[in-house]
Amino acid sequence: MPLRPFGDYLNALRAETPLVHCITNYVAMNSTANLLLATGASPAMLHAPEEVAEFTAISAGLSINIGTISSHWADAMLTATKTANQHAIPWVLDPVAVGATRYRQTLCAKLLAFKPCVIRGNASEILALCGLDSQGRGADSTADICQAVDAAIALAQKHGCIVAMTGESDWVTDGAQHYRINGGHPLMPRVTTLGCGLSALVAAFVAANREAPLGAASAALTCFAVAGERAGSNAQGPGSFQIALLDALYQLTPDELTTHAQMEAIHAV
Amino acid sequence: MPLRPFGDYLNALRAETPLVHCITNYVAMNSTANLLLATGASPAMLHAPEEVAEFTAISAGLSINIGTISSHWADAMLTATKTANQHAIPWVLDPVAVGATRYRQTLCAKLLAFKPCVIRGNASEILALCGLDSQGRGADSTADICQAVDAAIALAQKHGCIVAMTGESDWVTDGAQHYRINGGHPLMPRVTTLGCGLSALVAAFVAANREAPLGAASAALTCFAVAGERAGSNAQGPGSFQIALLDALYQLTPDELTTHAQMEAIHAV
Amino acid sequence: MPLRPFGDYLNALRAETPLVHCITNYVAMNSTANLLLATGASPAMLHAPEEVAEFTAISAGLSINIGTISSHWADAMLTATKTANQHAIPWVLDPVAVGATRYRQTLCAKLLAFKPCVIRGNASEILALCGLDSQGRGADSTADICQAVDAAIALAQKHGCIVAMTGESDWVTDGAQHYRINGGHPLMPRVTTLGCGLSALVAAFVAANREAPLGAASAALTCFAVAGERAGSNAQGPGSFQIALLDALYQLTPDELTTHAQMEAIHAV
Repeated sequence: MPLRPFGDYLNALRAETPLVHCITNYVAMNSTANLLLATGASPAMLHAPEEVAEFTAISAGLSINIGTISSHWADAMLTATKTANQHAIPWVLDPVAVGATRYRQTLCAKLLAFKPCVIRGNASEILALCGLDSQGRGADSTADICQAVDAAIALAQKHGCIVAMTGESDWVTDGAQHYRINGGHPLMPRVTTLGCGLSALVAAFVAANREAPLGAASAALTCFAVAGERAGSNAQGPGSFQIALLDALYQLTPDELTTHAQMEAIHAV
Repeated sequence: MPLRPFGDYLNALRAETPLVHCITNYVAMNSTANLLLATGASPAMLHAPEEVAEFTAISAGLSINIGTISSHWADAMLTATKTANQHAIPWVLDPVAVGATRYRQTLCAKLLAFKPCVIRGNASEILALCGLDSQGRGADSTADICQAVDAAIALAQKHGCIVAMTGESDWVTDGAQHYRINGGHPLMPRVTTLGCGLSALVAAFVAANREAPLGAASAALTCFAVAGERAGSNAQGPGSFQIALLDALYQLTPDELTTHAQMEAIHAV
Repeated sequence: MPLRPFGDYLNALRAETPLVHCITNYVAMNSTANLLLATGASPAMLHAPEEVAEFTAISAGLSINIGTISSHWADAMLTATKTANQHAIPWVLDPVAVGATRYRQTLCAKLLAFKPCVIRGNASEILALCGLDSQGRGADSTADICQAVDAAIALAQKHGCIVAMTGESDWVTDGAQHYRINGGHPLMPRVTTLGCGLSALVAAFVAANREAPLGAASAALTCFAVAGERAGSNAQGPGSFQIALLDALYQLTPDELTTHAQMEAIHAV
């Protein structure tokens, strides 16, 4: 199935303003909420066992990020993802630094059992999720994205989900169709938690375009790529860049997203 | 009792730089601290059971926000509000998304027993606190503010407190006198946790103007309305808006606050 | 041993991009990560007992900040600092508001047993760590920095560490050599958690310059002083200041750091 013009997915997001339940790390909470609001979605952050299932069930999408994980938060993530699975609510897994410790690997294995719609990570994280050597260092990837493309495809096939692997270029695959997305800006890795926010934005796009998750995830990544390029063109450094990125996501029209997308289908990997 | 010129309340805040103890949600902590510092108050965030009562007792004001509540944090909030009540320290309740889950409703009922000086919420939250249908969706209000004015007045009368209900227009009432405040900017709902920060700013104004909480709460809302209008006039989107808002709160003089206030007393609702 | 030109320490930091494990307060997490990334280090925030020792052991430096402390976090800090001590990984203690409650004093005494490389605090905090009267109020210092210089030297000698005491002027001492650093901008205290971020930056500098911690800590403070001065020259208030500070840290070259440093050795205190 060919992807629709990306502007369509953004149109759908802005028309629905999907409520996205985010259980994410402490570092990313504020910036994630602002990235969703700027683009046109409605974020909500909560995690208490007394209410987490009740809330996931009324959400349009769910974003799970293990950055500053601890046991109570892991419990909340398992409850939320189980609920999402039961109610067919699409959810995104961001396996931050999964290669760094055994604790993260064990947790991600449990979360994967509840069938994410999308896994969004860097090359090190995707390799680690596949059980390969990751060489990840903290939250930053040290693996080349090309090395990890095979792992991404295998992961998508194994879990029946989409894998969105981001780096200098981004790769999106559902195991059968593969796309490369270009754009963005060299300042992006110098601003913390942009990847975390992107994962939540993927959840928002998928929530508002449930019939077409591959296109929706690709559109979310393209949003970041196009807005990132614009933000970078006037930024003096990572401070002004992060502000310009929020403004660019807010200003970006569906037509511009369609026109400026730099994506290519990859037929042989 | 007529309200004093709003600049007087801001003058008092800057002269005292009140220490405001904030127990708030993870998303709002940084932005709330910056909003208080920019305006002229001194924020402090802490919540451990070993120290929370000790610290509330030396604070000038307390701000309680249930956004990312969980049981340990709820305990801290109950200890802090009980302490504030015992020491006659004014405190503000921000009942984030109270309509969304039973857990939040139960907690807010317990907190209300310790007599907040001000409740600051959106229309959905005020309706939910009154036990009415709220239609709240996450942290965002979906109710019309006019529908909720009666609920706000009833809530103020029931709990002997001030209710500050914010939205496109803001309403402040102590159950007997009612005011409408205009201003602000359409970008404000596109920046996360501005309402949370406003609640803490209300706590700061009330702490520095303890003899006149209705005027102080109104002055805090007017600060946001005037600074928001200015910030919006040059902003390119929600990123530059939030930065401009901090600058505008910092630059705002007491005379400008008095002059630019758009408030009207409402005699019949 | 004379200090090397400060640009050398910044060069080393950017060449190594040290992985800095931060266990810090909720308010500071995002801003701290951004300050480290802007300058050239690689931050990681995590604290779960299941993984904290494993992660500290692979980090180049550790930064501990007790701002929003609670018991589980205190346990994580003790595990991490014990690990750092065992592996000779340099770590920095930021004793936020240690004078405010007994709980903080007890925790800091336990942490000091694991021998920090640097203590970074304001004058009130340094006085409180020495067991003197602190007059601290929340996270802000109310003590004159000159009053506290003797306490800083005594603290450095007692714990065999460097003490970096910041305020209008900064003081750095290892108990034998003492330096005063000037610069910065009056807007700095109007932005939250800059001191917390500076502590983590000290950890990054020390991690990348392990043979010369006194020079490294001084270079970190000078970075903030020079970048702060530049940021302030164009800022309209604390909002634009915090953005300009990130840009200035990113743009600052080693040569500029060497040239613009305003430091003097103090021979008699």
